[in-house]
Amino acid sequence: MSVHVTDEFINSDFLIASDTVSPVATPTRTSRRREATRARLVAAARELFAEQGFEPTRINEITERADVGFGSFYNHFASKDAIVAAVIATAVEEHGSAVDALTADLEDPAEVVAVAHRYFVRLAGDDPIWAWLLVRLDLSHNVLSSALGERAFRDLQAGLDAGRFTVASVPVALVGSGGALVGVMRGVLDGAIPADRAGTDHAAGVLRLFGVPAADAAEVAERPLPPATRP
Amino acid sequence: MSVHVTDEFINSDFLIASDTVSPVATPTRTSRRREATRARLVAAARELFAEQGFEPTRINEITERADVGFGSFYNHFASKDAIVAAVIATAVEEHGSAVDALTADLEDPAEVVAVAHRYFVRLAGDDPIWAWLLVRLDLSHNVLSSALGERAFRDLQAGLDAGRFTVASVPVALVGSGGALVGVMRGVLDGAIPADRAGTDHAAGVLRLFGVPAADAAEVAERPLPPATRP
Repeated sequence: MSVHVTDEFINSDFLIASDTVSPVATPTRTSRRREATRARLVAAARELFAEQGFEPTRINEITERADVGFGSFYNHFASKDAIVAAVIATAVEEHGSAVDALTADLEDPAEVVAVAHRYFVRLAGDDPIWAWLLVRLDLSHNVLSSALGERAFRDLQAGLDAGRFTVASVPVALVGSGGALVGVMRGVLDGAIPADRAGTDHAAGVLRLFGVPAADAAEVAERPLPPATRP
Repeated sequence: MSVHVTDEFINSDFLIASDTVSPVATPTRTSRRREATRARLVAAARELFAEQGFEPTRINEITERADVGFGSFYNHFASKDAIVAAVIATAVEEHGSAVDALTADLEDPAEVVAVAHRYFVRLAGDDPIWAWLLVRLDLSHNVLSSALGERAFRDLQAGLDAGRFTVASVPVALVGSGGALVGVMRGVLDGAIPADRAGTDHAAGVLRLFGVPAADAAEVAERPLPPATRP
């Protein structure tokens, strides 16, 4: 399975959340209705992309599914790429929030990192459309500079502050672990790596990369994963 | 700096060396001349790509530099993409051989891995055109399934055989370390990571990922790097 996204699109800055969420300073009845229509369009596009992929989905299918007039699409989005960007920004934020929820009650920063990495490797097995998209987007580094990158930095820093992790360079550890995750997700998507233990084995590797001794890293990575509540 | 390569090209299987080297069962005078002309075209293309990039280089510039008639280009390559593929396959093989030469006298399998990773991180600082290309090619997994991937597997296996490395899964460790390398190279190319210590810090991380204890990994990664003889 493959998701085609143009280079121009991949290289745009769409993953910065503030670029894709319309600012509404003082909500009025009109602005609330406008936001509701936009949200319906995004939800409809998301369903269609998941059902049939990005490429074949046409704008009139999106407006039909959302029960919105074709012309009003352009009151919200300049192009199909623009709504793809909004759908992805929403999904990235939701996956990030889902991992936050999964890890909220964990006290060990190493387990937080392990669960986050296992979540995304599992995503490659469970939801290849979104996983491929994240992998392809990584090409431009935007995933790491996005809401996911901020979370990865936060989690690494928490482990360093707690004395659980030791790395020579935070940015090198951050892009290295992110790159490793993308490599493993891609391996699962390609079928080059069996999905069953990939997340656990990868998470143990990332913990070792972050300076956790091997036996300790393996134990943390093997802990039961909380049941995922995926968006 | 950025190198534009079409998705179709990236997704092709050109990095398999056997696809790009013309088989010559019984060398004859004609076939030797044919190979020599092809090699001149590849060398000329390589110079031009390095000087001015892939995109702006035109086929007639390549034939002129190679002192070959324009029409005979098509006796050897179906398109510009085909000669780009040949140039890259040559460069990948040369970088792989250069690392082999650098590491030939090393007895510690951990040092072999560290030197190889430091070589490619250094490449991102020294030769951004080729480094960008390797990073972009990784998108399709072809780098790992190429001559470089075979070497990475060989080096990981040597460390496992020697009891120097311990990993739960060889393929996960392989794609994880490869992904980490690509992430770090990209970080250097983007300017997100200072180049000076990136290779050393990344190499230490890969060794930890491969199960080498942290203090040991740091010591190996800091060993003086043999002077690079780059192609």
